[in-house]
Amino acid sequence: MSESSPQLAYANLIKSQRVSFLGTLRDGSPSVSMVSYAETQDLSSFLIHISGLAQHTQDISHSARVGLMIAEPDDGTRNPQTLARASIKGNAVIVPRNSSNYAELAHLYTTKFPESAMTFSLGDFEIYRIEAKSARFVAGFGKIFNFGPVDFLEAAAVHAKSQV
Amino acid sequence: MSESSPQLAYANLIKSQRVSFLGTLRDGSPSVSMVSYAETQDLSSFLIHISGLAQHTQDISHSARVGLMIAEPDDGTRNPQTLARASIKGNAVIVPRNSSNYAELAHLYTTKFPESAMTFSLGDFEIYRIEAKSARFVAGFGKIFNFGPVDFLEAAAVHAKSQV
Repeated sequence: MSESSPQLAYANLIKSQRVSFLGTLRDGSPSVSMVSYAETQDLSSFLIHISGLAQHTQDISHSARVGLMIAEPDDGTRNPQTLARASIKGNAVIVPRNSSNYAELAHLYTTKFPESAMTFSLGDFEIYRIEAKSARFVAGFGKIFNFGPVDFLEAAAVHAKSQV
Repeated sequence: MSESSPQLAYANLIKSQRVSFLGTLRDGSPSVSMVSYAETQDLSSFLIHISGLAQHTQDISHSARVGLMIAEPDDGTRNPQTLARASIKGNAVIVPRNSSNYAELAHLYTTKFPESAMTFSLGDFEIYRIEAKSARFVAGFGKIFNFGPVDFLEAAAVHAKSQV
């Protein structure tokens, strides 16, 4: 990546991907599953839409603290250590269907994943919001940045500016 | 995938990928990082080559129980729920440099990752072996299989047969 700032490179990574790898706690051990995500415009939060029947959802009901990995996919052509990736930490909190912003967040999610209309019609699927507390962003081999909420807002801002 | 058995589909996934997402425990919370892996021939174990300076290595020194996710990369063309992925559980154990099989395991790793010769020359990198205890294999939407050690051996066997 040749972006001028690590925050912009972070925003480009988050906005270019659809799937993330969710770390939850299961019987005291880390468990990693794949979940689709939609990022909020300000890059402060990630929305996931998961079934109450799924293991990760049961894990979250016991411990809300999660890890979320978003990575540039490996196409086999480069040294994998040079792939951009972000290890995000936060709490996963359910968005109740009667909350004032449910419709807005559901719209954000279904806009990114039109095929999720089917799962939105099922009773056991709920939106969870993961508010990012911190992120360890590896922009490539040895290029490591520790980001906090101020960096997420800056990332959203510089990305918006880059699109003009 | 149109493979005849889920074990073969699992073997094909493991053998087609290079990067995995490692779940470790950090201050009581799950943390997910990206690590390259080499699978052993019998698919019982995964080798990772990591630096003692890295967070995940420090995490493992406190708690060896890890989750390992190996997933078909998202190329943006399909419903992400249909991507094959495996959530593996096991313990990460260091392979001492003076152990009898160190050279064999190092060869397995460097054969898959020729570019790792550089990190093998560094003093702070060590091989860890993750012996798989169980795996939750999602072969596609709703096609979920719970595998144990017998399935890993069967997967290796049917894959070897499929290559003849």
